[in-house]
Amino acid sequence: MRAPASDPVDRTRFPVEEWGLTEVRYDTAHLGQRETVFAVGNGYLGLRGNNEEGNAEAHAHGTFVNGFHETWDIRHAEDAFAFAKTGQTIVNVPDTKTIAITVDGEPLRLSSPGVASFRRSIDFREGVLRRDVTWHTASGRRVAVRSSRMVSFSRRNLALMTYEVTVLDGPAEVVITSDVRNRQDEVPEGSAASVGFDPRRSAQFENRVLLSQLVRDEHGRMALAYRAAHSGLGLAVCVDHELFTDDPVTTETRMTADLGRRTYRIAASEGRPILLVKWVAYHDGGADADAEDLVGLARLTIDDAQAVGREVLAAEQRDWLAGYWANADVEIDGRPELQQAVRWCLFQLAQAAGRTDGGGIGAKGVSGSGYQGHYFWDTEVYLVPFFAHTNPGLARRALRFRISMLDAARDRAAEMAQRGALFPWRTINGQEASAYYAAGTAQYHIDADIAWAMCKYADVCGDPGFLTGEALPVLVETARLWVDLGFFRGPERSFHIHSVTGPDEYSAVVNNNLYTNLMARANLRRAAAAVRELAAGDPDGFAAIAGDLRLELSEVDVWEAAAEAMTIPYDEGFGVHPQDEDFLKREVWDLAHTPEENTPLLLHYHPLVIYRFQVLKQADAILALFLAGDAFTAAQKRADYEYYDPITTGDSTLSAVVQSIIAAEVGYQERALGSCMEGIFVDLADLHHNTGDGVHIASAGGVWNALVYGFGGLRDHSGRISLDPRLPAGWKALRFGFGLSGSRVQAELTASELVLTLLDGPGGTLTVRGEPVSLTGRASVRVALDGQGPLMPTITGSVPLLHGRPATPEELTVGLPTGSTTLSPQQVPDS
Amino acid sequence: MRAPASDPVDRTRFPVEEWGLTEVRYDTAHLGQRETVFAVGNGYLGLRGNNEEGNAEAHAHGTFVNGFHETWDIRHAEDAFAFAKTGQTIVNVPDTKTIAITVDGEPLRLSSPGVASFRRSIDFREGVLRRDVTWHTASGRRVAVRSSRMVSFSRRNLALMTYEVTVLDGPAEVVITSDVRNRQDEVPEGSAASVGFDPRRSAQFENRVLLSQLVRDEHGRMALAYRAAHSGLGLAVCVDHELFTDDPVTTETRMTADLGRRTYRIAASEGRPILLVKWVAYHDGGADADAEDLVGLARLTIDDAQAVGREVLAAEQRDWLAGYWANADVEIDGRPELQQAVRWCLFQLAQAAGRTDGGGIGAKGVSGSGYQGHYFWDTEVYLVPFFAHTNPGLARRALRFRISMLDAARDRAAEMAQRGALFPWRTINGQEASAYYAAGTAQYHIDADIAWAMCKYADVCGDPGFLTGEALPVLVETARLWVDLGFFRGPERSFHIHSVTGPDEYSAVVNNNLYTNLMARANLRRAAAAVRELAAGDPDGFAAIAGDLRLELSEVDVWEAAAEAMTIPYDEGFGVHPQDEDFLKREVWDLAHTPEENTPLLLHYHPLVIYRFQVLKQADAILALFLAGDAFTAAQKRADYEYYDPITTGDSTLSAVVQSIIAAEVGYQERALGSCMEGIFVDLADLHHNTGDGVHIASAGGVWNALVYGFGGLRDHSGRISLDPRLPAGWKALRFGFGLSGSRVQAELTASELVLTLLDGPGGTLTVRGEPVSLTGRASVRVALDGQGPLMPTITGSVPLLHGRPATPEELTVGLPTGSTTLSPQQVPDS
Repeated sequence: MRAPASDPVDRTRFPVEEWGLTEVRYDTAHLGQRETVFAVGNGYLGLRGNNEEGNAEAHAHGTFVNGFHETWDIRHAEDAFAFAKTGQTIVNVPDTKTIAITVDGEPLRLSSPGVASFRRSIDFREGVLRRDVTWHTASGRRVAVRSSRMVSFSRRNLALMTYEVTVLDGPAEVVITSDVRNRQDEVPEGSAASVGFDPRRSAQFENRVLLSQLVRDEHGRMALAYRAAHSGLGLAVCVDHELFTDDPVTTETRMTADLGRRTYRIAASEGRPILLVKWVAYHDGGADADAEDLVGLARLTIDDAQAVGREVLAAEQRDWLAGYWANADVEIDGRPELQQAVRWCLFQLAQAAGRTDGGGIGAKGVSGSGYQGHYFWDTEVYLVPFFAHTNPGLARRALRFRISMLDAARDRAAEMAQRGALFPWRTINGQEASAYYAAGTAQYHIDADIAWAMCKYADVCGDPGFLTGEALPVLVETARLWVDLGFFRGPERSFHIHSVTGPDEYSAVVNNNLYTNLMARANLRRAAAAVRELAAGDPDGFAAIAGDLRLELSEVDVWEAAAEAMTIPYDEGFGVHPQDEDFLKREVWDLAHTPEENTPLLLHYHPLVIYRFQVLKQADAILALFLAGDAFTAAQKRADYEYYDPITTGDSTLSAVVQSIIAAEVGYQERALGSCMEGIFVDLADLHHNTGDGVHIASAGGVWNALVYGFGGLRDHSGRISLDPRLPAGWKALRFGFGLSGSRVQAELTASELVLTLLDGPGGTLTVRGEPVSLTGRASVRVALDGQGPLMPTITGSVPLLHGRPATPEELTVGLPTGSTTLSPQQVPDS
Repeated sequence: MRAPASDPVDRTRFPVEEWGLTEVRYDTAHLGQRETVFAVGNGYLGLRGNNEEGNAEAHAHGTFVNGFHETWDIRHAEDAFAFAKTGQTIVNVPDTKTIAITVDGEPLRLSSPGVASFRRSIDFREGVLRRDVTWHTASGRRVAVRSSRMVSFSRRNLALMTYEVTVLDGPAEVVITSDVRNRQDEVPEGSAASVGFDPRRSAQFENRVLLSQLVRDEHGRMALAYRAAHSGLGLAVCVDHELFTDDPVTTETRMTADLGRRTYRIAASEGRPILLVKWVAYHDGGADADAEDLVGLARLTIDDAQAVGREVLAAEQRDWLAGYWANADVEIDGRPELQQAVRWCLFQLAQAAGRTDGGGIGAKGVSGSGYQGHYFWDTEVYLVPFFAHTNPGLARRALRFRISMLDAARDRAAEMAQRGALFPWRTINGQEASAYYAAGTAQYHIDADIAWAMCKYADVCGDPGFLTGEALPVLVETARLWVDLGFFRGPERSFHIHSVTGPDEYSAVVNNNLYTNLMARANLRRAAAAVRELAAGDPDGFAAIAGDLRLELSEVDVWEAAAEAMTIPYDEGFGVHPQDEDFLKREVWDLAHTPEENTPLLLHYHPLVIYRFQVLKQADAILALFLAGDAFTAAQKRADYEYYDPITTGDSTLSAVVQSIIAAEVGYQERALGSCMEGIFVDLADLHHNTGDGVHIASAGGVWNALVYGFGGLRDHSGRISLDPRLPAGWKALRFGFGLSGSRVQAELTASELVLTLLDGPGGTLTVRGEPVSLTGRASVRVALDGQGPLMPTITGSVPLLHGRPATPEELTVGLPTGSTTLSPQQVPDS
């Protein structure tokens, strides 16, 4: 994936604006992408951007309740011991978005030539999807249709919709039907059942999932409850309507197990708006939840919402978002098209995580069913830093969700013949759901990622008690995993970790993956430090937790010894860190001669073929350069970046944002911006052709990382804040906020200076390009900047650079004359 | 797996005899094992050893027609490009074995206390399973029941059964029902659906497989035809009966789609035998086969058989077996219990392969549904040498079957992004059916195994035209695969093969597997030699085939260059050949402290766990020492054996027989015999607890290898015959036959001499312990022997030996002080 054009969005359809996204004409092309980019959600409940009319002009009618999933028996064609047994798939819950009309018997179809105007927009400060349509019916009437859809941030179970019809010229019979509809028997256009092979899409269920438990018409208010057939989880949905019209109306309610329909027949007068307000509440519960209880909760949600009224709900929504943007916003002066796309990404993070509360954050948030609604490492590595710096409560809640999975992770470790805990690579309910272990269970690094994120939160938010408190069992059990998984070897007793897969899924089951070893080392060190701190500072507290965990300080000695002896692969001939011990022994994949139609590689080559070559799906060593950046010299970072960037396909959207950060640091400013734009536009321009499956949430989080860590040059290793900015050429200013041991700081970066303002908290000290800066008062501190760091020429092509120049064909096919791969455990600075 | 006791068979139940197997009492324990060891078959048709009464006292009612399989869509829980898509499973075809009786209304049940005697036996020269039962009915009658069952070697579609009832004291009403019964809806006791997880067992189908095409009562002769639902293959079965009795009888025939039943009611007189003769024929056909045509063929089989009569059929059976034993028999003087078990194994090879004709040889022959009836490399590596030396026609037919799969292998190579051909790891129809690529598709060595077997056949049988003729396309396409799969690397331009799995499935997806590289080298060399020989000797023939294959001699140059530069991993510190490049870098699995209940490892540990350690499922480097034995020095073989034997679990039955051969060669005579006995008794003593799934055919073939190559000391590299015998202590003599460039030689080995006799053909020269021996006349040649080779002390425990002594705990946990793994491409002698 090379950088997109400076603005890859079709601006005749989506004009540039800074605080919203507007679509100015209707088109049946790329329906899935638009359903995703106009999805509304709050992290608990998500409604895809389907048009209200609910007809066949849809990619996938999707409504999702975070964590509400079905389980199914994985059938391995060839099974083996401890292969994942139970699949988990998020369920498309009953759809309440559908509201359809006929005028004089003619249904509104958006693709009909009678639709004279169409406009749909969402304002990121308002949080309401709005649509305006003007329709000329075949019978000669002009009809104005205005609608809105909101999923409330203040009330996580609530959605509110309006649908207003005005016949502009002369009377007509208007029929409005508003549905709640269980769509589980429909095969959506983009599903695995209807398109070719793509493992990133969602599986269809073989059997009916939602078993009806209750169907009730409560004086026109519709209540339905279901139970998922195998997981047993319960769900209730309540829908209530209010119709505002001065014209004569007849009303009918029809209910079956899979459909609740309210129908209004109105003898509409000219020019008099008919307004339908639809109140919707979803509540889910565990396998022991009673349908009546869930319906009762949903009823209460609607009662409460109706009691405060629509105005108040709208104000709550604006208030919640104002609070979010106060910390999360990143401003780019001089590039409004980027500003818009960046804010769209940040808005998606609110929609994915705002009200998950005790739940996880899926790879697609609640915007689609891609990756089956699973939770991956995305949360810890791509989202937690953003939340830690802008919204500590969300970071802590996400980490608490992991802590709640610790027992399942302990069981999984035992099943995998290991001590400690092994967190699942992908899961909803805490069980490992990855059926392909080479790119799943083998990614042991998730343990270290989780520990890393816990430390990141504690460091940035000034909450060290988190590590010696509720996070300690996770730190201990993950450290145990590492010492048990690896082993000391050789006369130098270096510590080796074998048969793991790093972040790059185009290599699998390798020895001494650089990223894994570095992250495991940090995991071991931080776990040891937390235990020693507790033992020294709170002997009684330590005794209690040590008893629970059967922990003795002698065990901590072993963690520290393993950390000190950790193998860090480095190749002196190549002058780079191999991604894993054997990586540089492989042939280099010839990306220059790989046909475009054969990308992404994973859809066109057997894994065995891909694994045999030096080619990356996503940043791996480069991610280590970022997350464990204090373990590398500047020269090492540049050499590694120059080697890996050209052979990184970016077939994963987790890649570009990371490549951008390191490109900025080592001086490839043009590539830094290009890679960042791959992240910024991944969904708005559908760069990976699968936005229809849902928003790429990790990439959206990575966009904040690329802006703040990359261009802002922020680093926060062990909570020590430093800034070494890299403002892209042509940007007038970049403004962002970050945390400083619990205090809040606002940064404004221009070409010539960095202005830092303490917003709240006691402040503290940070460094800017190595110089300490004290931030304790209310006055802004201005730091003059001499340029924007090193500036390297652009790397072109797909040939790795070696020692600063493109590797020769001879080197690529035959290997470096001096290229003996050796292990130098301590060749990098200790962090 | 350590060696079994000297005779692990329960001799109170199976007395020792030299030419047969007899069971002298009935027992409901281990039913599955006895159904397997008493199965009768001819390679085309196989009937498991179920008792005729067909009641619930059965492990699995099995009847198999070689290659008659159903296909099904493999559903990968996580799919990826080019994963195997279509499963293939042998079908349990309609059962004709069932013949039941009642006497005065009481059914015969073998487990009832009324069964006073039970005896079942098969004579390996007669080829008929016979049973005698004496039964005291509850009504006070004594009844003698004698039955027989034969699958004809002379007429591959024919089975013949008899069932004789004699009421010994007083008249009684005897009812005999004889069935043909489609048992596909039954879940056999040992199937995956009824027991815990075991990937070696057969999958159950989800839907009905055999769709009825024709059901017809042809004047009492029953004809049924079916079509497999997805593969479309057609099958007909015809059953005819003759009843011989002087007593009054009434007869009835009932037929449904899944059952044909002939019922005889006989007013039996005292002491007068009632004999039922049951003629059975099975014919299968492709998806285009017509049911009427298949039934017509089956009818003809029965007509012809009835025309010649039972006496002739029995004589044909004895004649066929006499021909088989003339070449295949191996005699052991002084160990009758071993003699019996060895002959049982060799008899199984006749039953698995005798009349496959154009078909493959399944891992279980036609004796069970284990491994879903798939064909693996077993045929080429474990059976072809035996057939080449004893029955060249069977060897050639087996190889022709592979040649018929070449186009499918070409397609698979293309799908795997390779030139040439890649044969499937497991298959029935030529398509790759292995759904777990790490221990399936990644076993690229099957290409070299096939080429090796073709050369073995041509060399041993004196048929070099085979290699320049019909086998040439296979040699060429497999050579192409290797040069495309591997690559030249480093300043020395050594040739590397990455990401393959060797024979040992406890390591997977490794670089430069010793076995694979050696076998690929031989593949490349023999392909090059064959092409050059044809080009030099038959330019026109070469031009024609070169045109078909788009082959130029310059391509052959590359094969030769790759062969010469092939990486042969060798570790100077350890003084052994690593199984693969990284093998010695791993921890050594602690077999001494692995609980017995955790074996075999594959059923108790996730593959990732197993792959992380030095532990072997089966011989890998040791197999290379045998198959490519001329590439190693004697000292290297001993060092490698001493290292690998203690860490080889033998969890695969393919292992012990190979370990035995090298143990014998390097001088571990006691282990050689112990390992050989693991093979000899694998099924008769059910050493792997899964004989119920069918006979371990490769192991049975390996028993011949262990006796002839191991104790006989035969080697036949490139057709050059040498003998260096190793007669086990206590054996008086070992007699076996082998091939000498198409001639037949008989060898008699005693402690003091080797007597060689040319049986037919012009003879030639071989060597005995390095000294040439000319065998051209009719007179036997006696070669005096000075001992039986080196004699090493027994290896005990599971600690690898290094430099002739057990590795220290320090070495095992920390690695050898001098243990740097280096590659020395040319450290071994060229073959």
